[in-house]
Amino acid sequence: MAALKQVPLIVLLGLALVSGRAWPQQKLDDRAQAAIDETVAVYCAAWGEPDAAKRRQMLQRVWAPEGTYMDPISQTKGVDGLVERINGFQSKLPGGQIVPSSRVDVHHNVLRFAWRLVGPDGAILNEGMDFATLAADGRLQSVVGFFGPVRTPGVR
Amino acid sequence: MAALKQVPLIVLLGLALVSGRAWPQQKLDDRAQAAIDETVAVYCAAWGEPDAAKRRQMLQRVWAPEGTYMDPISQTKGVDGLVERINGFQSKLPGGQIVPSSRVDVHHNVLRFAWRLVGPDGAILNEGMDFATLAADGRLQSVVGFFGPVRTPGVR
Repeated sequence: MAALKQVPLIVLLGLALVSGRAWPQQKLDDRAQAAIDETVAVYCAAWGEPDAAKRRQMLQRVWAPEGTYMDPISQTKGVDGLVERINGFQSKLPGGQIVPSSRVDVHHNVLRFAWRLVGPDGAILNEGMDFATLAADGRLQSVVGFFGPVRTPGVR
Repeated sequence: MAALKQVPLIVLLGLALVSGRAWPQQKLDDRAQAAIDETVAVYCAAWGEPDAAKRRQMLQRVWAPEGTYMDPISQTKGVDGLVERINGFQSKLPGGQIVPSSRVDVHHNVLRFAWRLVGPDGAILNEGMDFATLAADGRLQSVVGFFGPVRTPGVR
């Protein structure tokens, strides 16, 4: 392991993602964490972008070409599918935003983060959590969203 | 959709799982939810089962043959891999238990639940959250665990 100490963690992350091999969890260095934070920030901002052309540009940066999206009420694939999914969201709640509300926890090629659904007047309308996998190039390969807080056992 | 109203939700869930097709979220009926709750309960109880043979029997009920497991410090596959992973856990913390601390949220073939790591003296040592996918037969096809609470942005 001594030789590995000379290799920046972001390179190790890249190698692990490309090779698909297991690697022991190591705290991401600041650059690696910042890159993933930025990916999530752009992804969330795309949900609040009313202009479909701008939204597509944003998603092309952070969404894998065959990336899959699923939440309790929808399922789609690819940048075009997600652009369209967000059209539906913006039609229902014009000016709505998805705002990350936690740090992005990452290990291997998976991550989770919490978010809030914020109305155009700034009111917090809901919360949720996304679980995602990263493609080899660091873009989002899959996102699965859950709405609402985790619930106490026995309460419907 | 009128005809679908006659079909129990558990059948729809089964069809959706088998076919792998998208379907709009519908609240699971009590039987479907109870079946998934039971799967998660047995899975969690297996983490606290010190006898490897009993643990294997428990996991065979709820873990798909090629099911994959990943958490921040490990990655493994299959019932045998998970039996071994839990050996490591029980060696480090004899009598440790993983106790579900939320309802199981399910949509499509994915779920999340929160849990607590409880020591042999009943002390809560950590919390975490698992995201999972279900195989067509309702057993766990993949579990990805995250340790600790979600963290406030900007705090390491």
